[in-house]
Parts: sequence; C-alpha cells; structure tokens
Amino acid sequence: MRVIGLDPGLRHMGWGIIDADGSRLSHVANGTLRSDDRCDLPARLVQLKSALEEVLGQHGPQVAAVEETLANRNPDSTLKLGMARGVALMVPAIAGLEVTQYLPMIVKKSVVGTGHAKKEQVTMMIERLLPGCSPHSADAADALAVAICHAHHASTRQSWADRRHEVAGRAS
Amino acid sequence: MRVIGLDPGLRHMGWGIIDADGSRLSHVANGTLRSDDRCDLPARLVQLKSALEEVLGQHGPQVAAVEETLANRNPDSTLKLGMARGVALMVPAIAGLEVTQYLPMIVKKSVVGTGHAKKEQVTMMIERLLPGCSPHSADAADALAVAICHAHHASTRQSWADRRHEVAGRAS
Repeated sequence: MRVIGLDPGLRHMGWGIIDADGSRLSHVANGTLRSDDRCDLPARLVQLKSALEEVLGQHGPQVAAVEETLANRNPDSTLKLGMARGVALMVPAIAGLEVTQYLPMIVKKSVVGTGHAKKEQVTMMIERLLPGCSPHSADAADALAVAICHAHHASTRQSWADRRHEVAGRAS
Repeated sequence: MRVIGLDPGLRHMGWGIIDADGSRLSHVANGTLRSDDRCDLPARLVQLKSALEEVLGQHGPQVAAVEETLANRNPDSTLKLGMARGVALMVPAIAGLEVTQYLPMIVKKSVVGTGHAKKEQVTMMIERLLPGCSPHSADAADALAVAICHAHHASTRQSWADRRHEVAGRAS
C-alpha cells in the first residue's frame, strides 16, 4: 500500500510518501509545496492544487492521510488553514484516493508512542522507521509522520480482521 | 459583462449570475449548491466543486465575486467556512475567471446604500435592481447582492477611467 501524508498550510504544504507492506515501511519521496504569497488567494490555491496533482501523478499513492491541525486562535489564519486543508482533502479525493484525517496527538502517539512527543522525537523516529530518509522540511517530516500513522492504523485494522477471520474459521 | 456572485458555505453555497451593461443590470439565474452532510469532508468538497463547475459551464460568467463572510467565533465552523470559501475562490480561478472578494459591509453599502442594512432591505433592493428575479434562497440572494456589488464597482472604475481619458484628451 502506497500512502501519501499531507501537512496542509497555505504557504507551505508538506507531503511525504511511503510504501507499507504490513508493518514494514519504506520511504518513497517527500517534499514541500509552496504558494507564492505575492499572488492573490485564488491563484495561490490553484498553485497548491496543481502542485499536489503533480505529486500524485508522479508517485501514484493509493490512499491519503491528512494532518488535522487544530485551528489557530486567529480567525484569519484559521480561514486560510481551512482553504489549504480543503485542497489537501479534495485533490486526492478527486483522484479517487480514500482520504483520512488524523489529529496531531494521534500521529505523535502512533509514531513515538506518546501524544505529547516533541518535534525532535518525531523526527528521530521517522529517520529510524524510514532508513535513508531525510525530510525536506519540518512540514515534510510532519507529512511523513501522518503517512506512518495511517500505515500503522491500517495494519492494525488488517491484523484484527485476520484474527476475526481465523476465529470464525475455527468456529465453523 | 456576465458576473457570478458566490456566498460560500460548506452546507449551502448560494450563487447568482447577472449581466451588467454599464449601470444596466439584468438577472440571468440563481440557485443554491448543497453538499450532503452524511458524506465525509473530502466527498462534500468534491460535490461543491463539481456543482460549481456545472454552473460555470452552463452560464459562462466572465468574472466572479465572492462574499468574504467574517470568520465565525467557533474555530471548527471557521475551518469549514475556509474550505468552502477555498472552493468558491479556486474553481472560478481554474476556469480562467478573475475572482474578487467583497466584505459583507461593502456589499450592503453597494446594494442598499448603507453597510448596516437589514436582510429584508437587501432582498427588496435585489428585486428592484433585477426585475423579475426571485432568489432561490437567502444564500442565493446574498450571492446576487455580491454580483451586483461587483458590477457597481466595475462600472465606477470604468466611468473614472473614461473621465480620465476624456480629460487627458482635452488636455492634449
């Protein structure tokens, strides 16, 4: 299963792609999409959309996981975050990918083992879980963490499903 | 000039299209796009995007004007408003339309003459300015008001440009 993780923001949108085979993970690519803040909002959203479409086309992920960053106190920043998050949710959905959101606490818990992990702990675990990977930016590291989180959740769901199947098989 | 006005919301997005020939306005069509709140966010954004693309394709507006509703106090509502506003800004921009945002106060001032006009005054003025038009919903009425606001601003800009041209012509 190839997963794209996304850490949405209007100025910078981190992305990270991994392959997950059960609990075995490997790094595919990561990067940061940018919008030009000298342009108006409609143009910036189109820039992010086109750049994200290009990444999807180039690497062909099958599912998308988006970090559900908590809203800022500043309403104007929250509006802009909403616009960027909308692009991150919509563009993979248009491409036919299943899209799941994960809260930052869930992502940290999944990657480091605790929901209150520090940024450096997350980065260290990413480098351990994905040997040879060096994140392009802090946003790209967050995006890889969301992708890892999704792979863990999917693998857990799968092993529970297998277990249920096994038990049902024995019972019949 | 054919203008589409948009009043963005995740659940309901009002739209209204008018033709403006200088200060002469006429109603073309209006309506309300809806997203299905039983679906997840990515699917709802795709629904709004597709519905808006259909309206653009059917009526061929040349410019878009989007109501810049002020952010809600509730951060979660503001995030969703941001997502819907993002669709309203991005979809016309992708179709090559120039997109302008107007604050609600500017819209009211432009349509009624005062920034603190009541909803009923706005509706009454829409029906007076666009004879024969009956708005499909409150959101569609707001969308028509934004379109009228844009037409007024464009017409004012044009008459100032004409005046400058005339003065320059006399001076030369």
